[in-house]
Amino acid sequence: MMNLDTKSLESLFDPQSIAIIGASERMNRIGSRPIQYLLDNGYKGNIYPINPKYDQIAGLTCYPDLYHAPEKIDLAILALPEGLVMTAIKQCAEKKVKSVIIFSSGFAETGSKGRELQDQILQIARKHDMRVLGPNCLGMFNNNNGVYATFSVSMSDGSPIKGRIGLVTQSGAFGSHVITSARERHIGFSCWVSTGNEMDIDVADCIAYLAGKDDIDVIACYLEGVKDGEKFLNALSLAKEHQKPVVLLKSGRSEVGKEAVQSHTASLVGSDEVFDVVFKQTGVYRVNTIEEFLNISYACTMVPLPKGNNVGVFSVSGGLGIMIADQLIEHSMKLPEPSQNIKEELLNILPFAGVRNPFDITAQIINQPTLLRDFMDVVFSSRLDVDIAIVFLSHLGLSNSIFNNQLEIIKEMKEKYPDLPCIVVTLTKPEIRKRFAEAGIFVCEDPTEAVKVVHALNYFRKKLSASLPMNQQWEQKQLDFSNSPQVLTEYKSKKYLKDYGIPCTKEGLATTLDEAILLAKEIGYPIVLKGMSSDILHKTDSGLVHLKLENKEDVELAYNAIMKKMAQMGVNAEGVLVQEWVNSNGLEVIVGSKYDVVFGQMIIVGLGGIFTEVFNDVSMRKAPISTTEAEKMLKELRSYRLFQGYRNQHSLDISALCELVSQFSHFVTDHKDVISEIDLNPVIVHPKGNGVVTVDALIKLNNSLVIHK
Amino acid sequence: MMNLDTKSLESLFDPQSIAIIGASERMNRIGSRPIQYLLDNGYKGNIYPINPKYDQIAGLTCYPDLYHAPEKIDLAILALPEGLVMTAIKQCAEKKVKSVIIFSSGFAETGSKGRELQDQILQIARKHDMRVLGPNCLGMFNNNNGVYATFSVSMSDGSPIKGRIGLVTQSGAFGSHVITSARERHIGFSCWVSTGNEMDIDVADCIAYLAGKDDIDVIACYLEGVKDGEKFLNALSLAKEHQKPVVLLKSGRSEVGKEAVQSHTASLVGSDEVFDVVFKQTGVYRVNTIEEFLNISYACTMVPLPKGNNVGVFSVSGGLGIMIADQLIEHSMKLPEPSQNIKEELLNILPFAGVRNPFDITAQIINQPTLLRDFMDVVFSSRLDVDIAIVFLSHLGLSNSIFNNQLEIIKEMKEKYPDLPCIVVTLTKPEIRKRFAEAGIFVCEDPTEAVKVVHALNYFRKKLSASLPMNQQWEQKQLDFSNSPQVLTEYKSKKYLKDYGIPCTKEGLATTLDEAILLAKEIGYPIVLKGMSSDILHKTDSGLVHLKLENKEDVELAYNAIMKKMAQMGVNAEGVLVQEWVNSNGLEVIVGSKYDVVFGQMIIVGLGGIFTEVFNDVSMRKAPISTTEAEKMLKELRSYRLFQGYRNQHSLDISALCELVSQFSHFVTDHKDVISEIDLNPVIVHPKGNGVVTVDALIKLNNSLVIHK
Repeated sequence: MMNLDTKSLESLFDPQSIAIIGASERMNRIGSRPIQYLLDNGYKGNIYPINPKYDQIAGLTCYPDLYHAPEKIDLAILALPEGLVMTAIKQCAEKKVKSVIIFSSGFAETGSKGRELQDQILQIARKHDMRVLGPNCLGMFNNNNGVYATFSVSMSDGSPIKGRIGLVTQSGAFGSHVITSARERHIGFSCWVSTGNEMDIDVADCIAYLAGKDDIDVIACYLEGVKDGEKFLNALSLAKEHQKPVVLLKSGRSEVGKEAVQSHTASLVGSDEVFDVVFKQTGVYRVNTIEEFLNISYACTMVPLPKGNNVGVFSVSGGLGIMIADQLIEHSMKLPEPSQNIKEELLNILPFAGVRNPFDITAQIINQPTLLRDFMDVVFSSRLDVDIAIVFLSHLGLSNSIFNNQLEIIKEMKEKYPDLPCIVVTLTKPEIRKRFAEAGIFVCEDPTEAVKVVHALNYFRKKLSASLPMNQQWEQKQLDFSNSPQVLTEYKSKKYLKDYGIPCTKEGLATTLDEAILLAKEIGYPIVLKGMSSDILHKTDSGLVHLKLENKEDVELAYNAIMKKMAQMGVNAEGVLVQEWVNSNGLEVIVGSKYDVVFGQMIIVGLGGIFTEVFNDVSMRKAPISTTEAEKMLKELRSYRLFQGYRNQHSLDISALCELVSQFSHFVTDHKDVISEIDLNPVIVHPKGNGVVTVDALIKLNNSLVIHK
Repeated sequence: MMNLDTKSLESLFDPQSIAIIGASERMNRIGSRPIQYLLDNGYKGNIYPINPKYDQIAGLTCYPDLYHAPEKIDLAILALPEGLVMTAIKQCAEKKVKSVIIFSSGFAETGSKGRELQDQILQIARKHDMRVLGPNCLGMFNNNNGVYATFSVSMSDGSPIKGRIGLVTQSGAFGSHVITSARERHIGFSCWVSTGNEMDIDVADCIAYLAGKDDIDVIACYLEGVKDGEKFLNALSLAKEHQKPVVLLKSGRSEVGKEAVQSHTASLVGSDEVFDVVFKQTGVYRVNTIEEFLNISYACTMVPLPKGNNVGVFSVSGGLGIMIADQLIEHSMKLPEPSQNIKEELLNILPFAGVRNPFDITAQIINQPTLLRDFMDVVFSSRLDVDIAIVFLSHLGLSNSIFNNQLEIIKEMKEKYPDLPCIVVTLTKPEIRKRFAEAGIFVCEDPTEAVKVVHALNYFRKKLSASLPMNQQWEQKQLDFSNSPQVLTEYKSKKYLKDYGIPCTKEGLATTLDEAILLAKEIGYPIVLKGMSSDILHKTDSGLVHLKLENKEDVELAYNAIMKKMAQMGVNAEGVLVQEWVNSNGLEVIVGSKYDVVFGQMIIVGLGGIFTEVFNDVSMRKAPISTTEAEKMLKELRSYRLFQGYRNQHSLDISALCELVSQFSHFVTDHKDVISEIDLNPVIVHPKGNGVVTVDALIKLNNSLVIHK
């Protein structure tokens, strides 16, 4: 896949030798922490501290410079003030170091001067095939080989637990916080990379690399911005190809947040809404809180994806069972109701139990420790269609004695029903969390988090199993937009669209009254006249549109009025558009494209008029899309009901609209470098079988590209 | 206030003597736990175990029955099988016990037989002025006097921490879970009551009682249903009167949840949407998760309400600062941006800091421990308008040495800027949480929770300071609906509305063609004719509406067509309504009322047609409401923009509409026992200054009440 050279990242994740340039003897310095961590975590390769001030650091020979290091260096860590980085990079290049991590800040994030320096360093790195992580980053660790190339303080209180989460964070402090938080609850990581300024290695590189690693079950990612949208999408495709769920938290939703991002990591922010669309299209699960980030990532390493969205809830508290049920329903999960037979069987076990789903096994579990097994066994072995279970044990996880039984029961159920994943919610203590982890059972303390986990697992089930949408085989066509003004008139816009095969109104451009009358006759009355000038964007507001003209006389009056008006306005009159009048017994829809700085051409569909403007009832996708995807877009609209034949109205020609949207998205894609923005407004959707027609359209070209042509 | 006898609850919350009927000698039994807890928590009154089997329990004299107890009993706890409860209640009545707690289940929650028994017990209690908590409850505790009248297992691991939260839960297990969870994080309670089946004492009683207690800062409540809506509202008013925030978690949002509630506590569920409306109207803060429930309640006891919604965010992580900023903005908070002067002052302190709000003080805090103080001091002492601060310290709370400094700094800031509350987010350990609590500083681990806390505090600031909305002094009128059919025709409906002063179309009922022609002339053409029959609800669908008749001939044709149609349909024709034709250059609005089983008459406003039906763009309030409140309802509509003069349209007569809505709400209230449902559909809102008019209306009467009349 383009842009994604994952092989060269091996020297970062699995180096045979590591040099620390700017190594320090003094405890708790940026130049001493990596050495300490490498030793603490049993790194097996050679470690070469580099610093002319010392002969030895932590029992290791210290070299005055890189040249003196006795063997080849795979990875060099630069723990230096920014002023010394350039010299060190040059040494690394000469020494043929494969990867470099630059901890130092003071580069692109500080302004143009820092950016210049960063660019120069990048040039050298590129020239010598050297990969660079950072600058302005906390480094990385790999828990499989003890490569702890980081100065995060978090590790000084203890190493992260080993696990199967691959963590990538643009912010180092975010990563440290998450890792520490995870350690406190016995959640482990396979590796972590903090990408900082992303001079070379970026989040996309890391996602692509981790996608191919067998020891990783899930990629957890913290994002502030993306510089290369296409590369990022390729990395996500690779993750999907390898069936690796991606859990992602992105900051910079709000305007305040966006501005802060710009001054934080200096990355391209783009539209957060577009990110949301892209995440949904690529199957990324976007979370909003640290809790979700941790719990969902962890669950992906502990819980097999459920086969469906039917949940069984077993609770020692009726009230909390109901709360969980409410939240599951809100997250589109289902709680299948047990049959009368099952209910009776359960009542035989405990007469005062709640025997609908959520099942209330009550505090009686304390006196009758097998209750949970008895209930689960009846439910799981019955024909009740349950795909995943949530077990709420309240505070029982704090009490070793009571808890022991329950853990055994849950393990037993896991073995007996391996296809039926089970999530446990209970207040716990560290030692009990550890035992859960060892037993391969997911546990969390907050029932709402369990609900979110179940929701996320179901999301991944659907997204990872979905085949990538086939793109329609619309004939690819490259139309010539050269010598066009930046804004095309309706007439010209529709000519291009028609050439591509998109249905538009019958129409022609008249430059004399006689031509107008002739055209009107050919097209058939009633007719519409519109004054055409690329100087005017809002024809209706300027009084240049005359609707539903019934005869020659009407046309004459309208034609003359339009020409007079354009003359008065002093605009360049290109003629009068003579257009069929479309009887609007259908629905007015807006179809459009807009250009996103990160991800390029996006397609938008919505109902016309106030629906789009007041209710913001629109659906968006990255172009191109298939007709199937176009239909999904329509179904996302709150107003979708109106397409289906609302209140004795005809159902509308949805399939014709989907064809138009898909074809339009390919039109936009085929001309993505030329087009800035298109509005088909309105497209009239006729009753089923009668098609769709674009009544008005406006194409804006990409200014810079127009000039180039 | 009606229904709320809080004085009699003193014997429950502060009894001088407690009898435990069904006391047990054996550890960990329902009949032994309260005794153990009372002793453990230093209850100063007399404890009388009652059980003929024992002479002594836990060193206390045990009496064979209540009669033998040497003094008056304030509170009797019944820890008995349900079959023995009736006899015990009778003994309590004879012994003049003031309050009784019935732990036993097996009553209304199990079906009609249990309900009957429960009702009989209630009769006895009422007759002898005895208050009853339960049955089917876990009891209660009061941390101010050691009254631990509960058998919750939770307390066997340690008593709840003392604090200033008053907790009321309909589910006992929910309460136990929350209390245990709170103890783990050093959050304390003043008292807890679990109300169970609410035979007598219900959530409303407890809220009312706690509202008047000085040792309580906030009332935290878990709710599944409410039996007496009016009483519940009175209790909430009392809480507001005493400036006590109410934090509430209600289960039973979903259909599954509602059904589960019915079998759990057998309470009236009502419409969850109506509960939401009522909570907003009464200033209750509804939470959805245990985390919110705990954190927000706790914050109300630790943090003074901020003066506004401007937040200053101080973070050791840039990324997390941005995430917090995003979430604050999403919760309608603001992050005021510092002036250039402040920024420069901050950059002088730390050149690579993030000096916009969110302030990024970076991990440099480890080397420069006064950074937080220096930053806060500059910001707080400047003219930057900050009302509350969030301090994010990542994992520093885990490290005693680093943390000590920061706690001192935050305490110092609290003293120096007492009006500027400060919320701390950090991973912590129990001993550090305790020190935060002792210093009176709110701390939580999850930044998202801090955001929710800030949001809730702001909500309370607004709601508790708002004066109760004055009800308009519309003339109160009691109209006579006797001898009416259950469904009134448009003509009759509007007669009642007009009598009350609500603007309706000019119209009259004609029973002959001549009358119709005469009426049309009086009213003025164009005219509308509508066939009137209380047998027909949908006039238009039945072809009984003829619009915009221009002259006598039109009227004649229409009149005859309508009469013929009604004859064909075989309905009881009451005549033909002759009505002015309203030129709809305004907006069509629906104003309606519906009856909620819990809270009674609710008022609904929304835009007509598909806006209400497809977008569900409606606003609801409990009747009656003032014009001010009516305006708030309109502003809640997503379509409110359309009222303000959207896209070159006239702005509409909002104040006339608000008058109509308020007046209508009083009409509904004045006839709340008679009316089941009213629809004014449409009300046409004319351009500003031109008023509103009800074009069609339908009143449905309360069936049972019509028959009684």
